[in-house]
Amino acid sequence: MVKKNYNLSLIGLGTVGSGFLDILSSRKHEITDKYDLNVKVVSVSDTKGTLYDQDGLEIEKILRLKSEDLKNPLKSYDESKFDKDSYELVFESNSDVLVETTPTNLEDGEPGLSNIKKALNKGKDVITTNKGPISLEYQNLYKLSQKNQVKLMFEGTVLAGTPAINFIKKDLAGSNIKSVRGILNGTTNYILSKMEKESKSFDKALEEAQKLGYAESDPSADIDGWDAAAKVSILSNVIFDQSIDPSEVLREGIRNISLEDVKNAEKNNKRIKLIGKVNKKGKEIKTSVKPVKLSLNDSLAQVMDATNAISVNTDHLGEVSVIGPGAGKKETGQAVLNDLLRLKDYR
Amino acid sequence: MVKKNYNLSLIGLGTVGSGFLDILSSRKHEITDKYDLNVKVVSVSDTKGTLYDQDGLEIEKILRLKSEDLKNPLKSYDESKFDKDSYELVFESNSDVLVETTPTNLEDGEPGLSNIKKALNKGKDVITTNKGPISLEYQNLYKLSQKNQVKLMFEGTVLAGTPAINFIKKDLAGSNIKSVRGILNGTTNYILSKMEKESKSFDKALEEAQKLGYAESDPSADIDGWDAAAKVSILSNVIFDQSIDPSEVLREGIRNISLEDVKNAEKNNKRIKLIGKVNKKGKEIKTSVKPVKLSLNDSLAQVMDATNAISVNTDHLGEVSVIGPGAGKKETGQAVLNDLLRLKDYR
Repeated sequence: MVKKNYNLSLIGLGTVGSGFLDILSSRKHEITDKYDLNVKVVSVSDTKGTLYDQDGLEIEKILRLKSEDLKNPLKSYDESKFDKDSYELVFESNSDVLVETTPTNLEDGEPGLSNIKKALNKGKDVITTNKGPISLEYQNLYKLSQKNQVKLMFEGTVLAGTPAINFIKKDLAGSNIKSVRGILNGTTNYILSKMEKESKSFDKALEEAQKLGYAESDPSADIDGWDAAAKVSILSNVIFDQSIDPSEVLREGIRNISLEDVKNAEKNNKRIKLIGKVNKKGKEIKTSVKPVKLSLNDSLAQVMDATNAISVNTDHLGEVSVIGPGAGKKETGQAVLNDLLRLKDYR
Repeated sequence: MVKKNYNLSLIGLGTVGSGFLDILSSRKHEITDKYDLNVKVVSVSDTKGTLYDQDGLEIEKILRLKSEDLKNPLKSYDESKFDKDSYELVFESNSDVLVETTPTNLEDGEPGLSNIKKALNKGKDVITTNKGPISLEYQNLYKLSQKNQVKLMFEGTVLAGTPAINFIKKDLAGSNIKSVRGILNGTTNYILSKMEKESKSFDKALEEAQKLGYAESDPSADIDGWDAAAKVSILSNVIFDQSIDPSEVLREGIRNISLEDVKNAEKNNKRIKLIGKVNKKGKEIKTSVKPVKLSLNDSLAQVMDATNAISVNTDHLGEVSVIGPGAGKKETGQAVLNDLLRLKDYR
């Protein structure tokens, strides 16, 4: 079979970006032999600038330099191939696909939003794990991708590499989706699990989540439900073709959940979970993120610790659920690789 | 966008076949508008013969006649379009796709196996829900489909319309699968759930399953693990490209599970489930179906009643599970529709 050549540009060399390069390096032969793709990375950008070689960069060398904790690993690769100016080089490069993994910004989606727009306008397919642009501007970005006859893939924005976006768009095609509920944030689920199983206070459980690297030092994005709201927004875009800004999602976090609340629920054979929900009533899309007391035989009640899940309610199948990790380096790298492998057959 | 035309031949007008026609009829406009397919059914065959019209049959009329409990509903449609001889007419017809839904036969796969082979050799894509041919002859059928440049789709053979085959082949592409465990049979899971929740004996619970239509009057295919073994065989074909005959699967059913066993497990915070398993040790594929005492925090332990599930263990994601219905008329019809919608983009 004729192999398809892909030149990639990667913007963002944080956990997700380097996780993807790790996987790409270890799966090189399989990608070529089993999936008939020849993949080259022609540019890699971080906040300091862009490393570019139209003939392809040596991924292993980039990863080695990155692991050495240098001040500017990309410049250290080869100064003559490094440009400290913005990402403009990327859009003018010979890449076919932009892999966009800059950090999520739910206020204006930047810098991801501009990166994605420019790439689509230059006729590049885009794979992103960045929740900002997809939750804020999906409908416009989708139209832009159609206009330029390129693809916009974003499996990694919800539940990392655990199938969610493609599960809904492809695997459930043919059935009508009435609603989706989900445990969409690992940090809050970890905290609630610790409170219940180890009778820890909210503050103690949060502290542990921070120690383990689940929660940021400013944990607001997680515990106030912003991260889950962005995912709810993305799901409503995908399922109902309707744009809901994360700030429009009815949102209540877990900051005010006390150990007593958790224990009282337990006494009544219930479990408190932070549930993100999208459903359609008539023509209206309803979205929410809030703590809900679930009965123990609810499939979402059994999802513990940092594990995530979505439960999709459809006409032909009733409730169908997917359970798996919702974050992590190789878990999100897998989402990018999966999007890449599907690119050539995707509509 | 240019619409793709599909002429279908349907063999088998039982629960699955008529379930698919039901869905096809109710989703007609959506299939045309949203998925850009023009679908016509040019032939329908049951055990009495074949109804054929190269310009397309009226699905609603077939369903109406079928619901009237006539002796020969297809002949009643239009005697001049009916042929009581075998299915040969189907293979010579102008159909592009064979939808094969004859009953599963795990001894020699017939009549499904011959139907599928003939269709592939005539250059027709095949969508089947028949476990016999896929578990017994998948590798040969796959090669035949490649040789004839057509597609062989079988989502409905495992977990009905709950995504399993495509979930593994497409959504998890890029990760290496180490093992799969599953609750692959609804009848046995229903029986075990009844025994635990309502303290019923095995015989009482089986009787109820039979009343509800879950179990056949000869329940051996379910309770002796044959149905689950066929699905284990299909999973090992898909995941490890290795053919394991259902009779080669280490197999133990639930016939000898007593209420006492179930209650003893419960006392130890365990739950007995009939688990189908496939894993690879070195170069050897190990397959089994047997009752297993699961700890209650195992994701499969929480799957109750007739619900089914698979848990896939992968290198990049750890354990990822799908939970949903494993049988039913519209549930399996959905599997066929989903395969049909994916056909044009499938590799």
